[in-house]
Amino acid sequence: MNWQQEIIAAKTRVSGHVRQTPVVKTSGVENLDSVEIKLEQLQHTGSFKARGAFNTLLSTPVPDAGLVAASGGNHGAAVAYAAASLGHRARIYVPEMAGPAKIDLIRRLGADLVVVSGAYANALEAAQAYEAETGAMQIHAYDAPATVAGQGTLMAEWEEQGLEADTVLIAVGGGGLIGGALAWLNGRRKVVAVEPETSCALHAALKAGEAVDVEVSGIAANALGARRIGEICLGFAQEHSIDSLVVSDVAIRAAQEWLWREMRQLVEPAGATALAALMARAYRSEPGEKVAILVCGGNIAPDPLT
Amino acid sequence: MNWQQEIIAAKTRVSGHVRQTPVVKTSGVENLDSVEIKLEQLQHTGSFKARGAFNTLLSTPVPDAGLVAASGGNHGAAVAYAAASLGHRARIYVPEMAGPAKIDLIRRLGADLVVVSGAYANALEAAQAYEAETGAMQIHAYDAPATVAGQGTLMAEWEEQGLEADTVLIAVGGGGLIGGALAWLNGRRKVVAVEPETSCALHAALKAGEAVDVEVSGIAANALGARRIGEICLGFAQEHSIDSLVVSDVAIRAAQEWLWREMRQLVEPAGATALAALMARAYRSEPGEKVAILVCGGNIAPDPLT
Repeated sequence: MNWQQEIIAAKTRVSGHVRQTPVVKTSGVENLDSVEIKLEQLQHTGSFKARGAFNTLLSTPVPDAGLVAASGGNHGAAVAYAAASLGHRARIYVPEMAGPAKIDLIRRLGADLVVVSGAYANALEAAQAYEAETGAMQIHAYDAPATVAGQGTLMAEWEEQGLEADTVLIAVGGGGLIGGALAWLNGRRKVVAVEPETSCALHAALKAGEAVDVEVSGIAANALGARRIGEICLGFAQEHSIDSLVVSDVAIRAAQEWLWREMRQLVEPAGATALAALMARAYRSEPGEKVAILVCGGNIAPDPLT
Repeated sequence: MNWQQEIIAAKTRVSGHVRQTPVVKTSGVENLDSVEIKLEQLQHTGSFKARGAFNTLLSTPVPDAGLVAASGGNHGAAVAYAAASLGHRARIYVPEMAGPAKIDLIRRLGADLVVVSGAYANALEAAQAYEAETGAMQIHAYDAPATVAGQGTLMAEWEEQGLEADTVLIAVGGGGLIGGALAWLNGRRKVVAVEPETSCALHAALKAGEAVDVEVSGIAANALGARRIGEICLGFAQEHSIDSLVVSDVAIRAAQEWLWREMRQLVEPAGATALAALMARAYRSEPGEKVAILVCGGNIAPDPLT
């Protein structure tokens, strides 16, 4: 598979459906003169997930039975939004841990929503049963080529916007976003994976040499709490020997607070996780190294306007 | 006074002290294909006011007695921040109506803060008395050339960023921001002034043919509630015969909600006021007309993270 070509094709497909999200540069993060921050939470439905959802729906025939997805919340919202935009039915399974803000968001988007007790893996099981029963098309949240290529459009877009960084820090859940970034960059810039200590499927997999099941918990778990890293992501992570770091919930909260206090960007914990690695010095840059941070999601709970 | 030169000089002065704030384009606002939105609430202290504050402090000798300002909140925060950055003392008078979120913000910035009962005009009186008594330098919130030139750097920056719009909608309080924009643009693009129905000093002045006192109230009053429009702004507004529109608090709330729901930008009512004019059709664009919206402030109350 030629990932560069796939991502270029994806970018053409999703154009007009996804937003080019803005980038801001700022001083004031640790001792760095300047950090580039991409605000992907301005994407439709509040996270990068719309990219993969649109790319999948626009590159595959959708059956009459429509779509089905399992999601901690953000992927489900993106599939619901893309389905509604393109005129498809969508059934979305979310675990209770998605929380009321994300559940309300998906409901507002008009999807047929089922809340499942337990964690993401339980929602995935239910979605697979529905797929088998109805013939609906499953859109995997992270470990499918069309999803990864869609998320890869983010890094392609960022480079078009003039990304200067030597190093880009990206939060990891199931690995769709970082997988797409690694696929696009193909070693041209350093990519650092950041996970919560309590939801670190990639970190565990890199240690074990293969994907392994992990327990997931903590404040970012409804976005980053994949029980097992995607194989596509793991392959790229091993191929490029990327840095894999973990951060505490306390560090994530501090980064979330910084984004609000210093930039009036109110984001969910997952959205602040990459920044947390820099602020908590889990990642220490070299003198002169240019660093960029991806803010990947903004669906904070509780919703501040309800 | 050559305003273009003043604003270019201001831009050089404030460079490195203020952020270049990001711009995003989106569809989905009324029937427009695309609207450019500048997110100035990412500025230091959450509003454009940092521009005027830094320009003033960097273009004028500051006495040992330091600075004094009266403010509904945002100007006070900006003066406190700029003073702290440059090593000056600052006394800030705010009216109670500034509200706890803005009062806490100014306190955190280390200024000597005095909360005055009543509205902005009462705080201004107190600030003038302090100035007379101590020799502190007063930084006017909007009606001073260095303030207006500083705010003018915003539109200069936006044009550098590739602003395409024929028409720019800007919320108006005392007129410093729109005054700077009009000074910079000098008729090259159409500027539309948007005020709350219940705080519309510019609208009243344009009707009366001169600045007049108005009553101020409503949800945006702590940012846009100037009792009388600045003379600098009024001069430009009359010279360029600008459109002056008013919007209801209901329309402002709807725009505030849209910015959060559609873009995860949580802003104060004043920050959503320009958008409200477009969404409530107080401003109706011509076919093919390109429209831009300035989001000027994000200091929402209550603070969502406290």
